[in-house]
Amino acid sequence: MNPSQWFTEQAPKVESAFSLKIKRKLHEEQSEFQKLEIYETESFGNLMVIDGCTMVSTRDNFFYHEMVSHPVLFSHPDPQRVWIIGGGDCGTLREVLKHPNVRQAIQIDIDERVTRLSEIYFPELCESNNDPRAELKFIDGIQWVKNAAPGSVDIIIVDSTDPAGPAEGLFSKAFYQDCCKCLSEHGMIVQQSESALYYLDLIGEMRGEMALAGFQHLQTLFFPQCIYPSGWWSATIACKGNQPVFREQDAVNKPFDTVYYNAEIHQASLAQPEFFKKALAAK
Amino acid sequence: MNPSQWFTEQAPKVESAFSLKIKRKLHEEQSEFQKLEIYETESFGNLMVIDGCTMVSTRDNFFYHEMVSHPVLFSHPDPQRVWIIGGGDCGTLREVLKHPNVRQAIQIDIDERVTRLSEIYFPELCESNNDPRAELKFIDGIQWVKNAAPGSVDIIIVDSTDPAGPAEGLFSKAFYQDCCKCLSEHGMIVQQSESALYYLDLIGEMRGEMALAGFQHLQTLFFPQCIYPSGWWSATIACKGNQPVFREQDAVNKPFDTVYYNAEIHQASLAQPEFFKKALAAK
Repeated sequence: MNPSQWFTEQAPKVESAFSLKIKRKLHEEQSEFQKLEIYETESFGNLMVIDGCTMVSTRDNFFYHEMVSHPVLFSHPDPQRVWIIGGGDCGTLREVLKHPNVRQAIQIDIDERVTRLSEIYFPELCESNNDPRAELKFIDGIQWVKNAAPGSVDIIIVDSTDPAGPAEGLFSKAFYQDCCKCLSEHGMIVQQSESALYYLDLIGEMRGEMALAGFQHLQTLFFPQCIYPSGWWSATIACKGNQPVFREQDAVNKPFDTVYYNAEIHQASLAQPEFFKKALAAK
Repeated sequence: MNPSQWFTEQAPKVESAFSLKIKRKLHEEQSEFQKLEIYETESFGNLMVIDGCTMVSTRDNFFYHEMVSHPVLFSHPDPQRVWIIGGGDCGTLREVLKHPNVRQAIQIDIDERVTRLSEIYFPELCESNNDPRAELKFIDGIQWVKNAAPGSVDIIIVDSTDPAGPAEGLFSKAFYQDCCKCLSEHGMIVQQSESALYYLDLIGEMRGEMALAGFQHLQTLFFPQCIYPSGWWSATIACKGNQPVFREQDAVNKPFDTVYYNAEIHQASLAQPEFFKKALAAK
């Protein structure tokens, strides 16, 4: 293995690494907020890297984008207004807009350059950017939720980078309190919550902050994500009010295609591994 | 990343790699059958490598060992006699012997050196090797099933290396036919079946060979396995006769501890991703 032909990400705090063989570097820049790199890989299509961490690849992004979108949307009685905090590659926006209930989806990513690069190197993820229901804002998501009117959104999807760098404030009680305020009566939030094998403590802390902010009925769901540390990822759903109710028939009859998600996978993702149950019970 | 401080496995046919930082190499030998290496890693405990492929680590072997054992054992009405073909590290044997129904578990691995090294470097996996119900044979599993008496076993677990090298014959119709002959009326086989993201064709071929050999009611189950290529692994269960029936209450009330497996995870592992369903339907 010649290191110059591979992109390697070492997992934070865990001495493991994942590598993809690259054909060439397609782009590199330091944006106002972070370092952005795009590679053409041998077997994963294109790869976007932010501050040294793999973000999205052509081959396997479907796991993540589908699993931060469809479970929460099919657990809300009528999700009409959705905000995506982060998500600049637009893959989550595309999945959200597949839902006929949605009449407004606002993507709020601080870094416009992520979206501009995604339009060039991941055009399939951006195919719904011109949907009349879509709005792309390039501002600070933390300020956005702080200033937004109470009850003005049904679902908030926090599709952020890891809790270091620009995304740090997105894993805190103060941010979750602002989210809670913005949400309507049956409002729900979902956030990517890292690997349960590598960063179990972080999931526990995040759930703790969500609960302190007033969220209830927390559900952590699990799914594969090959290019992320450990290859096994999670997202955590929390509710402002009522318990989430899975609209199973709507998921079975969904009027759109997916690659990973379906009604059985939705239910399956909510099964809690034994060690995870024990860790939560011990809190 | 200094390559001399890391063990790296490149995934066959896919240009990705997974690496663990090592403290030191504990052992290396060329056995009669394969090259065996043991490393002490920084964050995964000990690591066994066979012919350059990661086999088992202290930290994450529970996923694999639990998922090739408990789902099939809790899907058989009364699993009393179990064979493990391969499985020389003895981790599967330990899980099988947790089941009170089991009165005989025979592990048949061609390479005794794997077991002898596991006894030294993975003693926790070998803690049931002296159970009076356990029998360890160091002979060719293919010959074993060829020569065994019809109807002499309830469950066969094929816990093998990848379908190249010594394990190649374990992924063929001829081997499955011999297994089918050995199994009792409600007999079941389960075999590790690689990554659905990387080697979907191989799962399809394996299922095809199983069906040609007379097996029915195939179920492929999915689980995380961080150190294996893509971090997402599978096993495939097949039945000689009746459909598998999950003894759910027995799983809920299981009289033993697990790290990953429980009754909900059992059900969840059987959910088929959308792309997997479509691939099977297209056959």
